[in-house]
Amino acid sequence: MGRAPTDGVRLTLAQGHDLAVKALTRHGCDLENAQAIARNMMRAEADGSYSHGLFRLPWCIHTLKLGRANGAARPGIARRAPGLVWVDGGRGFAPLAQEAAIPVLAQAARENGVAVLALRNVYHVAALWPECESVCEHGLVSLAMTPSFPYVAPAGGNRPLYGTNPIGFGWPRRGRPPMVFDQASAAMARGDIMLAARDGHAVPEGVGIDAEGRPTTDPNAILKGAQLAFGGYKGAALALMVELLSGPLIGDFLSIEAEADDGGTRCAPHGGEFILAMDLARFGDPETILAHGERLFAEIERQPGARLPGDRRLDNRKRSQTEGFVVPKPTWHAIAAALA
Amino acid sequence: MGRAPTDGVRLTLAQGHDLAVKALTRHGCDLENAQAIARNMMRAEADGSYSHGLFRLPWCIHTLKLGRANGAARPGIARRAPGLVWVDGGRGFAPLAQEAAIPVLAQAARENGVAVLALRNVYHVAALWPECESVCEHGLVSLAMTPSFPYVAPAGGNRPLYGTNPIGFGWPRRGRPPMVFDQASAAMARGDIMLAARDGHAVPEGVGIDAEGRPTTDPNAILKGAQLAFGGYKGAALALMVELLSGPLIGDFLSIEAEADDGGTRCAPHGGEFILAMDLARFGDPETILAHGERLFAEIERQPGARLPGDRRLDNRKRSQTEGFVVPKPTWHAIAAALA
Repeated sequence: MGRAPTDGVRLTLAQGHDLAVKALTRHGCDLENAQAIARNMMRAEADGSYSHGLFRLPWCIHTLKLGRANGAARPGIARRAPGLVWVDGGRGFAPLAQEAAIPVLAQAARENGVAVLALRNVYHVAALWPECESVCEHGLVSLAMTPSFPYVAPAGGNRPLYGTNPIGFGWPRRGRPPMVFDQASAAMARGDIMLAARDGHAVPEGVGIDAEGRPTTDPNAILKGAQLAFGGYKGAALALMVELLSGPLIGDFLSIEAEADDGGTRCAPHGGEFILAMDLARFGDPETILAHGERLFAEIERQPGARLPGDRRLDNRKRSQTEGFVVPKPTWHAIAAALA
Repeated sequence: MGRAPTDGVRLTLAQGHDLAVKALTRHGCDLENAQAIARNMMRAEADGSYSHGLFRLPWCIHTLKLGRANGAARPGIARRAPGLVWVDGGRGFAPLAQEAAIPVLAQAARENGVAVLALRNVYHVAALWPECESVCEHGLVSLAMTPSFPYVAPAGGNRPLYGTNPIGFGWPRRGRPPMVFDQASAAMARGDIMLAARDGHAVPEGVGIDAEGRPTTDPNAILKGAQLAFGGYKGAALALMVELLSGPLIGDFLSIEAEADDGGTRCAPHGGEFILAMDLARFGDPETILAHGERLFAEIERQPGARLPGDRRLDNRKRSQTEGFVVPKPTWHAIAAALA
């Protein structure tokens, strides 16, 4: 999630959108792709997912400038099986392919009860909660995963192998945003370690090890060493599952293969995303199922100190509609340079 | 996994099977149900999952004697949607329903690419890895979840709400058993906390909280308070997902509802299980996908100290074929009493 920036340039979400579109189209994106990426980044900024907002814009531009991502890509979408939506993103950025494929996934889930979206050959899958939420808006339960670059050591190991390998899960609610969580299998999101390094903050113990395998709280040392999974071997097992489902199963890269594909160019990761959707209406009466879920949510909220996952994001979302968001100065200067 | 018993009665797996069948049929199970339960327990004993082996037999008998579980149940299996296998276990024990339904799940996954088994109205879903492995034997990837009784507090909360809520995942391998992990969302097994209380040992930090919600390492205080999920709020979010998918989505109990249904009789939990299956052959060429997975496994095993999840179980399985297994004396006496 990252810390809320305080020192920087305040923008409205509309201004942020326009800024992102302008920068992306200046560097090779067509309007459709630039707008889809900008929408994705503004959803992140609105919810306080700062590390997936404009912070990533210079990285996307770098990936475009080197000619690796295709800023004018159009996704190819096919039903490989009744419950399997197979998407070739054509080396484009993920958001346009996601926007085009999620309605097809929803249709497949309605027909079969359950369906998988295999999103392949895209750059820079960002936070997973936006697509989990988009799937939920079709009345579906969602589960999403993606690898990245090798940052996290396997259980008992000492070298990076897994990506931060987030798992996103969404459950619809009647008359309000779905309950969505989106959490890295890593103890801390890579973007948050990068922000800590940028801002000169230490990170908690258990987040990572240095290049010699020693525990450290120095984010710069961890960026050169390896991150650790959350919760020890159990988090590492989940990271392994994420690699298998969003890599080999859908015919796309493992995190180590994405790194080899990158070839040291330090571009956004090239790879795939796995999204599962299930249609409440095929399992039973949706109102009954949703009311049953609400019973659990009410029990959580009855406990002092307990909140539903994602509540903080939704609080941020309300505030950002009127207050906008703050672009920290380093990001602002990087974007200004890209527009110069 | 539990501790390997050393003091007790050594049996072959065939002897253990026969003993379980004899005890279960004595107390109301028909032969088909008794044999399915015994097969499930012997898979657990063979792999060193002692807490899911004969240790559970007196609990099953107690549940039969009170007339709660139906020892002669036959599962009703229907395809509610092309990708959804809907099973009513008829208040029987889970194993016979699982054995009957998994081939139907496999057929649905082959037809659609992905399918869900909603196993409902059963008693005592035990370890998840046996069914994950059985699904993998059909050339499918598997993901399984089940609730239990409320033991674990939600993130930030102070009272039990979630079950230990395990997640099982299986990935097929050519010419060898699948890679399967099966891990509780709780930080520590309840039985280990009870043993620590009995023996006067502290448990590690992060395992639980006292009745006022304060962190403690006192196992007695935790048993009166609540267990915690592994890895803090992230493990708790997974426990929440398990409740939703194996409760409301499939029209069965939340852990708190299973407790209310039990009504203080201390029987095995009554509820459901969610099992997802995906057919490699609909995603691509199975040999290519499997070889790709093996690349990741080889990278894990190249790191000193790192092993694949489930390796210890598979080591135990080899040994128990010749050496059998040990029934600890308290369990042996309880079974003898049930046969008297």
